[in-house]
Amino acid sequence: MTNSSDNAVYGDESPIAAFATTPGNSALTLIRCSGKGSIELVSSVFAAARTKNNSLQENISPLMTASGNTVIHGWIVSKTEGTAVDKIDDVLISVFRAPKSYTGQDSLDICCHGGITAGKAVMAALKGAGFRDALPGEFTFRAFINGKLDLTKAESVMELVSAKTETSRRHAVSRLSGSLYNEIDAIKKLLVDVLAAAEIYLDYSEDEISADTEEAEGKLPQKNNALEALTRLKKLSASWQLERILQEGITIVIAGCPNSGKSSLFNALLKEDRSIVTEIPGTTRDWIEAWVSIEGIPIRLIDTAGLRETGDSVEKIGVERSRKLLEESDIVLYLIDGALGLTAEDKDFTANLNRHILVWNKCDIAPLPESLHVSGQFPISVSAKTGEGLTELYAAITSAVGIKDLQLHNDTSSAALGTIRQKNLVDAACTSLEEAITLSDNNEPLDIIAPLLKDAVNSLGEITGEVSTADILEKMFSTFCVGK
Amino acid sequence: MTNSSDNAVYGDESPIAAFATTPGNSALTLIRCSGKGSIELVSSVFAAARTKNNSLQENISPLMTASGNTVIHGWIVSKTEGTAVDKIDDVLISVFRAPKSYTGQDSLDICCHGGITAGKAVMAALKGAGFRDALPGEFTFRAFINGKLDLTKAESVMELVSAKTETSRRHAVSRLSGSLYNEIDAIKKLLVDVLAAAEIYLDYSEDEISADTEEAEGKLPQKNNALEALTRLKKLSASWQLERILQEGITIVIAGCPNSGKSSLFNALLKEDRSIVTEIPGTTRDWIEAWVSIEGIPIRLIDTAGLRETGDSVEKIGVERSRKLLEESDIVLYLIDGALGLTAEDKDFTANLNRHILVWNKCDIAPLPESLHVSGQFPISVSAKTGEGLTELYAAITSAVGIKDLQLHNDTSSAALGTIRQKNLVDAACTSLEEAITLSDNNEPLDIIAPLLKDAVNSLGEITGEVSTADILEKMFSTFCVGK
Repeated sequence: MTNSSDNAVYGDESPIAAFATTPGNSALTLIRCSGKGSIELVSSVFAAARTKNNSLQENISPLMTASGNTVIHGWIVSKTEGTAVDKIDDVLISVFRAPKSYTGQDSLDICCHGGITAGKAVMAALKGAGFRDALPGEFTFRAFINGKLDLTKAESVMELVSAKTETSRRHAVSRLSGSLYNEIDAIKKLLVDVLAAAEIYLDYSEDEISADTEEAEGKLPQKNNALEALTRLKKLSASWQLERILQEGITIVIAGCPNSGKSSLFNALLKEDRSIVTEIPGTTRDWIEAWVSIEGIPIRLIDTAGLRETGDSVEKIGVERSRKLLEESDIVLYLIDGALGLTAEDKDFTANLNRHILVWNKCDIAPLPESLHVSGQFPISVSAKTGEGLTELYAAITSAVGIKDLQLHNDTSSAALGTIRQKNLVDAACTSLEEAITLSDNNEPLDIIAPLLKDAVNSLGEITGEVSTADILEKMFSTFCVGK
Repeated sequence: MTNSSDNAVYGDESPIAAFATTPGNSALTLIRCSGKGSIELVSSVFAAARTKNNSLQENISPLMTASGNTVIHGWIVSKTEGTAVDKIDDVLISVFRAPKSYTGQDSLDICCHGGITAGKAVMAALKGAGFRDALPGEFTFRAFINGKLDLTKAESVMELVSAKTETSRRHAVSRLSGSLYNEIDAIKKLLVDVLAAAEIYLDYSEDEISADTEEAEGKLPQKNNALEALTRLKKLSASWQLERILQEGITIVIAGCPNSGKSSLFNALLKEDRSIVTEIPGTTRDWIEAWVSIEGIPIRLIDTAGLRETGDSVEKIGVERSRKLLEESDIVLYLIDGALGLTAEDKDFTANLNRHILVWNKCDIAPLPESLHVSGQFPISVSAKTGEGLTELYAAITSAVGIKDLQLHNDTSSAALGTIRQKNLVDAACTSLEEAITLSDNNEPLDIIAPLLKDAVNSLGEITGEVSTADILEKMFSTFCVGK
C-alpha cells in the first residue's frame, strides 16, 4: 500500500484526499475523499459514535453499510497501537456511492473540527490508511472523465471559486448550469448537418444529385446553417472581452497634482461601493490600493497620493514607481484640481498618457468651465467630497474598457466564453469555417471544403471535451486548486 | 420577518446561520444553519438539481421530505423577481432533523463553492429568507441547552479548534469524549453520598442513631468518601498547570552575546521540530519568532539576534526591546559562546534574569569545562551546529516549566481540566470540602458542615452545567468563535 503522490497521475482511480476548505481559525474543516475503495479505507480509521451502552462499536462499520447521500456521526481513530483505539477527532461523514457523487466514484466528505491540528491529524490518519494527496483539480478531472460534467462546466467551477464580484459569480454560475455548453452544442449540430450533407454530395454527387441543385445552393449545401454557425461563433468570440475583464479585473490608477483630491476620490469610490472585495494590506508600500467592484467589474484601484507629494523636490524613487504603476494600469483617472483649473503641468502629464480619463474634481466649489466643454475629450465633472458626478464617472470607466451595453453584461441568459482556452478554440473554429465558406463562394470542390468543416467541428468538440487528449486535460486541470 | 441580529439573545430558537469555514481561496465553503423552521426556510431558496427532463423541480422541495442525515444536491436560488429563478450556487445540503443533530434542533449544513463570492451570495439569500447571523458559540450553546453535551465537552470543542500542537489536540479530544465529565461526575457522587448520609444524621441523630456510631466515625459520616473526593479534586486542580501550558504555550527567548550562536540554535530548534505550528511573518520586526512544538508543548520561540549585535555602540532602542522581550518570556535560554568561555558579561547579564537556562554552545569544538560542572546550576552543553545535546535541552525546558513526568502529560486517559473556569470551580469545591473536613475534625455540628458540602456539590455542578445561570452561560459561550 502506497500513499506517495510523487508519481501520481491524473486519470487513475486511486483513493485521493484533500482539504476542501482553508485550515485556520474556523469552526470546521472539510476533507474530501474519492476513489476506488475509499469507503473501505475510511472505515478502517472510523468508529461510530457511542451507542447506548457507552462503548465504541467495533464490528461492521456503519460507513460500509451506509446508503449513498447519508451522513454518519463518529470518530476518526488511530488503531496503530495494538487494539487500543486513540480518538483523533469527532466527525460527520457524508457518504456518496458511485455513480451518484461529484466525481462519479465512491466519495466521502469528512467534516472535522476547525483549527490547525484536528484536520491535520485526520489527514495523517487517512494517508496512513492508504489515501494519497489529490492533485490540483483532480476531483473535477475525475468528474469529467466519468461524464458528470463537460469541460465548460468543469472550467466554470474554477471561475466560480475565483470570482471577484457578484457579476463574475453570476456569469460563472450561468456556465456551470450549461449555458455555454448548450450554445456550443447547438452550433456544432448546425455544422454537423452541413458536414453530413456535404459528405452525401461527395458520395453521390456524380450520379444521383443533379448539378442544378448544386448550382442553385452554391457549392456548400445548407449554407445558411454554416452562416448562422459563423455568426453565433463570432458573437461568442466577442463575449470574451467582457468575460476576461470580469474574471481578471482591470487596474485603475488615480493620478494628478498634489491637492487635486486623489485620496478623496479613492475613498469616495471605496465608500460608494458596497461590495468591496478586499483591501490589500499596505505593509511597506507607499501607495494605497484596494479591490472594488464598479458596475460588477473587479477593479484594482490605486491611489498614488504620497508618491509625488513631496513638494518641489520630487523624489526620484517616487517618480519611478509612479511611472511603473501608470504603465501597468488599464486606465488612468487624471484629476484636475478644479480650484486651480487645467494647468500646464496637467497638460504635460496627460500628453504622454495612453488610456486616461480626465476628471475635473471639486465641482462643488469650482464648476467645470464652458471652455473645456468644447474640446474633444472633455473632463468628467465630479466632487469627491459630495459624490456628485460619480455615476457619470462609472459610465466613463465602463465605456473606456469597452463595455457599452451594460444590459448585455448583466444578462447571463446568453452564452459567453469563460476561458482563453475556449476563446482560442472558438477562433480556430471561426477561421476554419470562414475559409470553408470562402472556398465555397469561389466554387472550389467540396472535397477540399469538407476537411475544414471537420476541423471546425473538432475545435468545438475540444471546448466541451468530447474531443480531447490526455496532455490537454492534464494541463488544464493542473491550474485548478487542490480539493476541487 | 426579521433577520437582524442586533437584539439577538442566546437561548432563543430562531433560525441562525454562520460560516463554519474560513472564506478564501478554497474549493468549498460550509455554512451552518439551525433553529426552528430552518428546513422550511432553506427550502424557500432551494431548487433540486435538474431532473431527467431538464427542468428545475418547482413543486415540493426535496429538503422538506428528506429524512434526517441525508444529503440533497441542488441550487440555492433567488426567487425575488417574480417567478424567474436566479441560480446562486450549486450546493450539497446535509439535512439533520431534531433531535438528531449537533444542536438538537432541525439543522442544515450547506456546502457551497469556495472563494469570496459564492458563500457570500448564499448567505445573503439565507438572510433574505429569514435567518439571522449566529452569535459566537451559539450552535454549541444550543447543543448544551438541548442536552447534547455538558459544559466540559462544550468547552473542549473550542479547545480543540484552537489547539496548537498534537498533544493539545489529544487532551482536548479526551475531554470531548467525556474524561473530565466522568471524573467530575464520580467525585460529585462521592460527595452526594456523604451529604445524603449527613442529612440522614441531621434528621434522625437525636433519636434513632446511637451517639456511639457518631463517635466511632467522627462527626462526618462516610468521611473516607470525602477524603477520596478531596484527593481527586486536588489532582484535578494540579492538572491545570500543564493544561494551561498546552493551550496557551510558553514564550522562550534566546539571548546571549554576539556570535554565541543564537540564530543557529533558533534554526536548530526549528529544524529538529517536525511539527512546526506556524511561522509568524517578520514584517517590520527586528527579531525573529516562530511557534514550535517541543515535547508537545507549544513554544513561542524568539531569537533576539539583531537586537544587540551592533558592535560596541549598543543601540538604545534595541536594548529597550530586548529588555521587554526578556520580561515577557517564561524562560530565557542564555547562550554562552563555548569558544570564549563564561565571560564577565555573561555573568552580569544572567545575574538579573529570573527563570533562565544556561546553554553552553559550540560543544563540538569547545567541550564544557569540568570547572563549570561543579556549580549549582551548570549549563546544558549543546552544539547548535551538530544537534548534540538538544535532547538534554528539551528535558531542561520541560523541567523548567514544571513538567517532570512526561509520561503523565502524554497520558490522556486520566482526567484533566481544560479551562480556568473549571479550575476556579474545582478550587472552590476543594475549599468548601476542606473546611467541612476541618470542622468535622473539630467536632463541629453537622448542621454547619452540611451547607459546605452542598457548596462543593454545587461548584461541581457548575462545571458540567447542571447548575448554571443565564449570565454565566452567555459569558462563557460568547468567547467561542462564530459558526461553532
